[in-house]
Amino acid sequence: MSNGKDNFSVADLSAALNAGDRADLVNVLKTQHDDLEAKFFEERAALEAKYQKLYQPLYTKRFEIVNGVIEVEGATTEAAVADQQVDKDAVEKGVPDFWLTAMKNNDVLSEEITERDEEALKFLRDIKWSKIDDPKGFKLEFFFENNPYFKNTLLTKTYHMIDEDEPILEKAIGTEIEWYPGKCLTQKILKKKPKKGSKNAKPITKTEQCESFFNFFCPPQVPEDEEDIDEDAAEELQNLMELDYDVGFDSNAVGTNGYDKQK
Amino acid sequence: MSNGKDNFSVADLSAALNAGDRADLVNVLKTQHDDLEAKFFEERAALEAKYQKLYQPLYTKRFEIVNGVIEVEGATTEAAVADQQVDKDAVEKGVPDFWLTAMKNNDVLSEEITERDEEALKFLRDIKWSKIDDPKGFKLEFFFENNPYFKNTLLTKTYHMIDEDEPILEKAIGTEIEWYPGKCLTQKILKKKPKKGSKNAKPITKTEQCESFFNFFCPPQVPEDEEDIDEDAAEELQNLMELDYDVGFDSNAVGTNGYDKQK
Repeated sequence: MSNGKDNFSVADLSAALNAGDRADLVNVLKTQHDDLEAKFFEERAALEAKYQKLYQPLYTKRFEIVNGVIEVEGATTEAAVADQQVDKDAVEKGVPDFWLTAMKNNDVLSEEITERDEEALKFLRDIKWSKIDDPKGFKLEFFFENNPYFKNTLLTKTYHMIDEDEPILEKAIGTEIEWYPGKCLTQKILKKKPKKGSKNAKPITKTEQCESFFNFFCPPQVPEDEEDIDEDAAEELQNLMELDYDVGFDSNAVGTNGYDKQK
Repeated sequence: MSNGKDNFSVADLSAALNAGDRADLVNVLKTQHDDLEAKFFEERAALEAKYQKLYQPLYTKRFEIVNGVIEVEGATTEAAVADQQVDKDAVEKGVPDFWLTAMKNNDVLSEEITERDEEALKFLRDIKWSKIDDPKGFKLEFFFENNPYFKNTLLTKTYHMIDEDEPILEKAIGTEIEWYPGKCLTQKILKKKPKKGSKNAKPITKTEQCESFFNFFCPPQVPEDEEDIDEDAAEELQNLMELDYDVGFDSNAVGTNGYDKQK
């Protein structure tokens, strides 16, 4: 038999055992889970950073080989090689069209590259991927040599994510390309003959957007007020953003893995 | 000036410096990268497993509280509580409708749950997530008490993935639900009155598929030969598979995080 004090204690505990308080207990467990999960994300980020550092010397070496900055051990200078009268192929520095080839070997990217783009992509010297922290996301850097198409030597594409665990794209930002006059690959100029007997003898020109890999740097924009767009437009936007993200993801794959198929 | 031997060496090296061989060097770097990456995947899997173990006691505790298997420290048995004549609420075990509430609090899942489903989901006692290794993927387990809707006490959904790094869904497999007669929630029986003057006086019944969360256990099937389906059907299938995956992903989120909003 229990005394008065015990009775009080039992009633008290019983009251604490209603569903609401049990839900509180579950919430305490949830907080403990969230704390653990935060530590997991921290450790995972540290692991990713550790391997990013380990990959770095390989990327640097690849850059140097691909762009002929260094040659293999014991190799002589280009002038000395020319002196030995070896054939032209042997003196060509680096791996010609490495990045264009790598991109064309990727199923997603190859779909985006037009014939017009190829000439410009031959000037691509490196693709770098890096994580960004504030806001969360990642950045792709496309390094170009001086080329006759655009002034920029660096084109970047940055993806801002909402959630780190299940990454949800918030928006993507690209570099504005400074095309040289008449060299823009994302636009086509259509010329129409003036009508017969027209006073103006000049042909009428019309500029039109066209397919090009370089549209990648002008990603789809999410309107400020999402309610402004109807269901079809929203679906179209969703598809465009997914494609844009896929291109970004595969550019990363190309950047980190280089190419498999070329030899 | 170099001697004959040196000349040979230079020519040799020069020959080795043609683009093809440089590509070989790049491939060596790629192999080194892949080896490092394999180690990264290994370490990441170990990290995930470590935290899965750390979460486990919290899930067990939650299961016990939610289902009234244990009560809070110092609590008495249900019989003893009844003995103290505390009100009915206080003796109700566990957290009623915990999982139904958790699922309804999730935006993706709540869309899938019909009013008819709710009664059956009140018998849900736990959702468990686990990784599977061969083939790669993950498994969701839905534990039910004995209920008047179906015989099974465990419904599972397994997702097989193609790629671990960028997980691509290969297929999903669900438990076949053994519905009790007349209790199937994924079908509706439509009764049509027989035409006036018809010889057969019985109403004609027609069974039709209908919306239900339990369709989750009968996921869309990818045809063996993908070329058998046209573009529209392929897009429809893709959308269905994405939705199915989202439901699975959010079931996992509910299973690992429990519920936020209920109190």
